[in-house]
Amino acid sequence: MKRVRIAELAWPVYAQRVEAGAPVLIPVGALEQHGPHMSMNPDVLLPTAIAERVAERIGGLVAPAIAYGYKSQQKSGGGNHMPGTTSLDGLTVTSIIRDVLKELARHGVRKAVLVNGHYENSAFITEGVDLALRELRWDGIHDFRCIILSYWDFIGQQTIDEIYQGDFPGWAVEHGGVLETALMLHLHPDLVDMSLVQDHRPAEFPPYDFFPIKPEWTPPSGCLSSAKRATAAHGQLILDVCVQGISAALATAFD
Amino acid sequence: MKRVRIAELAWPVYAQRVEAGAPVLIPVGALEQHGPHMSMNPDVLLPTAIAERVAERIGGLVAPAIAYGYKSQQKSGGGNHMPGTTSLDGLTVTSIIRDVLKELARHGVRKAVLVNGHYENSAFITEGVDLALRELRWDGIHDFRCIILSYWDFIGQQTIDEIYQGDFPGWAVEHGGVLETALMLHLHPDLVDMSLVQDHRPAEFPPYDFFPIKPEWTPPSGCLSSAKRATAAHGQLILDVCVQGISAALATAFD
Amino acid sequence: MKRVRIAELAWPVYAQRVEAGAPVLIPVGALEQHGPHMSMNPDVLLPTAIAERVAERIGGLVAPAIAYGYKSQQKSGGGNHMPGTTSLDGLTVTSIIRDVLKELARHGVRKAVLVNGHYENSAFITEGVDLALRELRWDGIHDFRCIILSYWDFIGQQTIDEIYQGDFPGWAVEHGGVLETALMLHLHPDLVDMSLVQDHRPAEFPPYDFFPIKPEWTPPSGCLSSAKRATAAHGQLILDVCVQGISAALATAFD
Amino acid sequence: MKRVRIAELAWPVYAQRVEAGAPVLIPVGALEQHGPHMSMNPDVLLPTAIAERVAERIGGLVAPAIAYGYKSQQKSGGGNHMPGTTSLDGLTVTSIIRDVLKELARHGVRKAVLVNGHYENSAFITEGVDLALRELRWDGIHDFRCIILSYWDFIGQQTIDEIYQGDFPGWAVEHGGVLETALMLHLHPDLVDMSLVQDHRPAEFPPYDFFPIKPEWTPPSGCLSSAKRATAAHGQLILDVCVQGISAALATAFD
Amino acid sequence: MKRVRIAELAWPVYAQRVEAGAPVLIPVGALEQHGPHMSMNPDVLLPTAIAERVAERIGGLVAPAIAYGYKSQQKSGGGNHMPGTTSLDGLTVTSIIRDVLKELARHGVRKAVLVNGHYENSAFITEGVDLALRELRWDGIHDFRCIILSYWDFIGQQTIDEIYQGDFPGWAVEHGGVLETALMLHLHPDLVDMSLVQDHRPAEFPPYDFFPIKPEWTPPSGCLSSAKRATAAHGQLILDVCVQGISAALATAFD
Amino acid sequence: MKRVRIAELAWPVYAQRVEAGAPVLIPVGALEQHGPHMSMNPDVLLPTAIAERVAERIGGLVAPAIAYGYKSQQKSGGGNHMPGTTSLDGLTVTSIIRDVLKELARHGVRKAVLVNGHYENSAFITEGVDLALRELRWDGIHDFRCIILSYWDFIGQQTIDEIYQGDFPGWAVEHGGVLETALMLHLHPDLVDMSLVQDHRPAEFPPYDFFPIKPEWTPPSGCLSSAKRATAAHGQLILDVCVQGISAALATAFD
Repeated sequence: MKRVRIAELAWPVYAQRVEAGAPVLIPVGALEQHGPHMSMNPDVLLPTAIAERVAERIGGLVAPAIAYGYKSQQKSGGGNHMPGTTSLDGLTVTSIIRDVLKELARHGVRKAVLVNGHYENSAFITEGVDLALRELRWDGIHDFRCIILSYWDFIGQQTIDEIYQGDFPGWAVEHGGVLETALMLHLHPDLVDMSLVQDHRPAEFPPYDFFPIKPEWTPPSGCLSSAKRATAAHGQLILDVCVQGISAALATAFD
Repeated sequence: MKRVRIAELAWPVYAQRVEAGAPVLIPVGALEQHGPHMSMNPDVLLPTAIAERVAERIGGLVAPAIAYGYKSQQKSGGGNHMPGTTSLDGLTVTSIIRDVLKELARHGVRKAVLVNGHYENSAFITEGVDLALRELRWDGIHDFRCIILSYWDFIGQQTIDEIYQGDFPGWAVEHGGVLETALMLHLHPDLVDMSLVQDHRPAEFPPYDFFPIKPEWTPPSGCLSSAKRATAAHGQLILDVCVQGISAALATAFD
Repeated sequence: MKRVRIAELAWPVYAQRVEAGAPVLIPVGALEQHGPHMSMNPDVLLPTAIAERVAERIGGLVAPAIAYGYKSQQKSGGGNHMPGTTSLDGLTVTSIIRDVLKELARHGVRKAVLVNGHYENSAFITEGVDLALRELRWDGIHDFRCIILSYWDFIGQQTIDEIYQGDFPGWAVEHGGVLETALMLHLHPDLVDMSLVQDHRPAEFPPYDFFPIKPEWTPPSGCLSSAKRATAAHGQLILDVCVQGISAALATAFD
Repeated sequence: MKRVRIAELAWPVYAQRVEAGAPVLIPVGALEQHGPHMSMNPDVLLPTAIAERVAERIGGLVAPAIAYGYKSQQKSGGGNHMPGTTSLDGLTVTSIIRDVLKELARHGVRKAVLVNGHYENSAFITEGVDLALRELRWDGIHDFRCIILSYWDFIGQQTIDEIYQGDFPGWAVEHGGVLETALMLHLHPDLVDMSLVQDHRPAEFPPYDFFPIKPEWTPPSGCLSSAKRATAAHGQLILDVCVQGISAALATAFD
Repeated sequence: MKRVRIAELAWPVYAQRVEAGAPVLIPVGALEQHGPHMSMNPDVLLPTAIAERVAERIGGLVAPAIAYGYKSQQKSGGGNHMPGTTSLDGLTVTSIIRDVLKELARHGVRKAVLVNGHYENSAFITEGVDLALRELRWDGIHDFRCIILSYWDFIGQQTIDEIYQGDFPGWAVEHGGVLETALMLHLHPDLVDMSLVQDHRPAEFPPYDFFPIKPEWTPPSGCLSSAKRATAAHGQLILDVCVQGISAALATAFD
Repeated sequence: MKRVRIAELAWPVYAQRVEAGAPVLIPVGALEQHGPHMSMNPDVLLPTAIAERVAERIGGLVAPAIAYGYKSQQKSGGGNHMPGTTSLDGLTVTSIIRDVLKELARHGVRKAVLVNGHYENSAFITEGVDLALRELRWDGIHDFRCIILSYWDFIGQQTIDEIYQGDFPGWAVEHGGVLETALMLHLHPDLVDMSLVQDHRPAEFPPYDFFPIKPEWTPPSGCLSSAKRATAAHGQLILDVCVQGISAALATAFD
C-alpha cells in the first residue's frame, strides 16, 4: 500500500501525488488530560488514525497532525486548569491552520480536509480556513476547497445504541469517556489502563459557562463521564463507522 | 423602576450602582440576515431584551450591545455570503470582549454576564473572556468573575414541546425559524412580516462544513427552518422562560 | 418614509437598496461619561440621529452604530480614568471599522460615510478605512469610496456666534458642554438633567499631554466646560445645521 | 557641554545619567514630502533640533529619532499618495513607541518626552504610551511618566502675529509652509531652495476626509500653503520660542 | 524504563513527574523537503530522537514536537518555493512557543529545553521564549528557566573530522546532506533511499540573500550538499555525541 | 556628487531618481551598548556609512536608517539586560521592514537592499521582506526584488588575516571588538575612546542559549572580545573591502 503520510514521503513523490489531485487530510488535535486511565494524546492519535485509514481508501495524503489545540473548556474537556492540558491561544490555532493551508495550496493541493479530534478547536479552525481562503483569493487561487469535520459527527444512532445500550450521555460529556477510551483500547491499548477508570456518573453542568472556572465542577478524574463500558471491540466498531462514513462523504464532497 | 441601561446613566449614578455590587450584563449579537420576513437585528434585540428584564429582576445593569458578531456559518446562520450579514473577524470579536470586560473591571464591576444571541460568537467570546481574565490577573485583579450564556440554552424540554408539538428541528437549524420569529413577534412586531415567511422544511446538511460555502445548501430564504408556526404568544412564553431561568441562575451563580 | 436603519430591514429589501446605489452611513461613537447631568451615550446617539436624518434626505441607509470607541483623552474627553468610560484599544477600533467596511463592500455598497461622534476615534477610523481599502483592492474592488466626518465640523461660525454669544471655548473643551447637552436636550430630554449641571469655567490644560493622566486636571464633573447655557432650541439649531450641511456635502461628494 | 544624544554615549555614561534622573526626549517624525523646495525630513530634523536644545537646558537626553511615521493625511500632509512619503501602519508606529518606552523604563528612566514633529503620529503615539504604561504596570513599574507634545503647540499668538502679519492660515495647512520652511532655513539651509517655492494660496478642503484620496485636492507642489514668506530669522524666532516654552514646561511638568 | 513522552502519560503521572522537578524537552522541527532520497520529517524526527534519549538519561520529559516551522531559507534549507516544504509565518512560530511554555509553567515545570532541528526556527523560538518569560513575569513566575539549543552545535571537531575526513562543507549547506541523512539511516532507515542521492558538490551562494528567491541557485535535488558519504554508523556516532553532549550540558545548566 | 540620502531630497528629485531605476539601500541597525569605549550607535552608523558609499558608486539612494533593532542576544551582543540597549519586539522589527518596503514599491522602486548592521535583526528582516513581497504580490506587483546582506559577510579571509594576524575570534564574539571599533575609529573617531577599552579574552559560551540570561556570562565591559588591536587604518581597510565587495555584488545581482 502506498504511504499516506506526507512527512514520510520524499518531495518528488509528494509533488507527484499532489499533481495527481490527491486530497490532503490534516488531523487537528490537542495535548489534553483524558483521565487517570489514559494518555493525553487521544485528540491527536484518533483523528490521525482515522485520517490515515480514510486516506488509504480515497487515495489521499495525511499531513502531520496539529499536536496542540485550543484551551480545554470545562463542560467539554474538563477545563484548562488541569495538569498536562497544554493549550494555545485562539489566534495561534487560527494562524497555524491558515499558514498550513496556504502552503498546501502553494504546492498545488486543491482539496483539504481538517479532521478535528478536539471539540474546542472547531471555531478557530473555521476562522483559520476563512483567513486562508481570503488570502488565497488575493493570490488569485479561487479553486481551493476545504472540509472541516469532527470524526464523532459520523457516528450514527445505530452505533450509539449498540455501544451505549440506551445510556448515551451525549457527546458533550464524552470527554475521556467510552468513545475515546474504546478507540484508544483498539488502536493504542498500551496507552490505556482500564483498572484506573473512575466509574462516576456523567458530569452535570448548568446551562452557562463560568470563569474563572470552578474546579469542583469537574470530576476529580478529569473525565466528564465513565469509560467503564469501553471495550476494544467498541473501538473497532467506531473506527470502522467513522472511516467508512468519512470515506464515503469525501468520495463525492468535492465534486 | 430604576434604569438598567448603563448608557443612559450619568456616571455618578453608574459609579454608585457598581460600588453597590451590581452585576453587568452585556448582550452580544450580530447583524445577520434572518430571512425575508424579519429584520436583521434579532441577534442583538433578543439578548438585549432578555438582559434588560433579567437586570431589572436581579438589580443588574446592561451594557450597550455588541452589534456586530462573528461570521455567520452556513449550518447555523445561512452562511456569510448572504447580503446584509455583516461580520467581524474572530480576533476582532475577541478583542472587543476583552477590552470591554477590562474596562468594566477598572470601574469596579466584579460580576459580568455575556448574554449571547448569535451562536457563532460563542468561542470568540470565550477567548475574549480568557484574555481579559489573564490581563486583569496581571493587574492584580483576581476576583472578577464572568458568565457566558446563550439564552436558548435556558429553554427546557417542556417549552419546546409546547411550542413545537413534537416537530422541533433542533437549535442547529432554528436560524430565522420559530424561536427567533416568535420572540420578535412579541417584542418587535413591526420588524416581522409573517406574510413573507417561506414555509420550507428544515435545511439538511452533511456532517461536515464546506468552504467556500455552497450557496445552494442554504434555502433561498436564508432561514434554516420555517417560522410559519411562530406566534407572539410563543414569543412571550419563551421570553418568560428565558428571563426566569437566567434570573434564577444568576441569583446564585456568583455566590 | 422608507426605513433607513439597515438592522431593521429584511435582507432582500437591503439588497435592493444597495443595488440601487444607496450610500451607507455608520455612526461611530463611544460609551463615555459626559458629566453628572447627562447619560453616557451622546457620542452614539448624536451621530446616529444625524446619520438617520441625513439618510432620509439623501436616500441613504444607516448601519448599527459602533457603540464603544477609543480611549477618552483628558484634554478632549476628561480622561480614561473616569467611571463609566468604557473604551477599546486602538487596534480594536481600527479592526471593527475595517471589518464592517469590507462586509458592506461585499454586499455591493460603494459609498460609505463614517459619522464620528467621539473625537478620539478619528485616527483609528482613518486607519480602519485605509486597511479596508487596501484589502478591498486585493480583492479587486477599486471603486469603494469612503467619507469620514465629525458632525461638529459642519457647524459654522454663524451658528457658534448665535449659541455662544462670543463665549465659545473651542471644540477642544466642549466635552459634556453646550454642544452635546443642547443636542441631547432636543433629541433625548429624558437623558439630561439640567439641574445637575456644574457651572464651572472651561478646563485649561498645558500644551502637552501627560501620562498617567493627572486626575486633578479634569474638573470634578468630568465635563470640560459648562453646559449651563444649553437649551433644546440650541440643540435643534445645531441638529438642523449639521443635517443640512452633511446632506449637502454628501449630495455631491461621491460624484 | 555634555553630550545629549543617547546614541553617542557609551553605556556606562548613559547609565550614570539615567541614574541621576535625566529625562529622555524622543523625537518622533516621518519621511514625508514637504514640497519641491525642501527635503523630506523636516518632521525628523525639527523635533530633533528642538529636543536637543531642550535637553541641553534641562539636563536631559535625546533618544534616536523615530524616522518613519504614520500615513500622511491629505488635509494635513498632502496625502499618502505622494512620491517619497514613506509611512507605517498605525499599529507599527504604536508598537515602536511602546517598545522603546518599555526599554527606557527598564534602564531606569522615569521621565520620557515624546517630541512629535508629524501631526498624523499623534493618536498612535498616545496609544503606544498607553500600552507601554499598561505593560510597565504589569511589571510593577508605576512611576514611569510620559509627556507627549507637538512642538508647534508652544508657538503663541504673539509669535504667529510677528511672522504671519495677520495671514496665518492655521496649523492645519502649514504643511511645507512658512513654519517648517523657516525652521529648516535656520537649521538646515542646505536642504531648502527658496527659488523652488510654489507661491499658491492655502489649500482649501471640505469639512470631511475622502478615501481613496482625490489627488487633485492637494496642490501640485505637495505643500498646503506657501512658504514664500519664510526666512531664517523667522526660523530662529520659532526655534527659540519652542525651546524656551518646552524647557519651561518640562522644568516643572514632572514635579 | 519510565516513559518520557508527555503525550503518553496519564495526567496524574505527568503531574507527579513535574512536581518532582523533571525538565521538559520540546523538539521544534519543520515539514521540509530534504532531497529525493529522504522523507520530509528529519527536522522533527531527529530532535525528537535526541530529546527522548536525553530525557531518559536526565530524568526529563519530552513534549510533543512542533511539527511545522519557519520558512525554509534558500541558503540553509533550499528555499520556501520547494514542493512539500510547509512553513509558518514567524509570528505563528513565536506564538506556539510562547503559548506552550506558558502552559508548562502553569503545570509547575520550571526547566524547559527547546531542542531545535530546523535552523530557520532559531530567532522565532528565541522571541517566543522572551515573550513567554515576559508574561510569566507578569504572572509572578520568576523562576522559569529555558534553554534553546540546536543539536548540531554539540558535534565537535573530532566527530566532524571522523565523518567528513576533511571535506566538511560547513553546517550552512548540510541541508539534506551527510549529517541528517546519516542520522536518519541509523534511526529511520525506511525513510531513506540512498540510491536516490544526487551526488553534487556543495551549493555555493553569494554573501547575501535574494528575494524572491532564484530557484536556479538551489540544486535540483533540493539538498545543499551530497549525502553520498552518509552511513548508519555515522548516524549512530552523531547521535551518541549529541545525546552525551546535551545530557552533560543539561545536567548542570540549570544549577 | 549627487546626494544619495532620500531624506535630503525634495520629492520631485526623488521621484525622478526612482523613475530612472535607482536601487534603494536601507541601513538596519540598533541602539545597543558596545562597551565602555564606544557609543551605542555603531550598528546604525556603520551600515549607513557603507550604504552611502555604495550608493554613490552604483547610483543608488539611501533611506533613513532603522535606528532600533531586535533584542540583543547574549552570545552575539552581550544580552538585552544591559543599560542603554534599547530593542524592539520581533514583530515590530518585521512590521517596520514590511511597511517601508511596500511604500518604496508604491513609489516605483523595484530594487531594495537591506544593509544590516545588527546580527540579531537578520531573521526579522527576512520575515519583513517575505511579508512585503506577499502583500505586493496581492497588489499586482511582481517585479519588486530585495537583497538582504550583513556587511561583515563581505570581509574575506585575506582581510581577516591582515587585521587579526591569526587571532580572529570569529564574528560571533566580535561585538564591540576589533571590527566595529576599527570602523568607528576611521569614521567617527569622536565616538571612540581607546583608553577605555577593556582588554579581555574573547567571551566563551556553552553551545546553547539560556533564559533569563545569566549576566555573569557577559564580560563586565559588555563587549564579547577586546578592541585593543583596532586602529583607524584597519577601519579604512574594512570599509574599503565592504564598499567594494557590496558595490560589485549589487552591480550584477539584480540582473
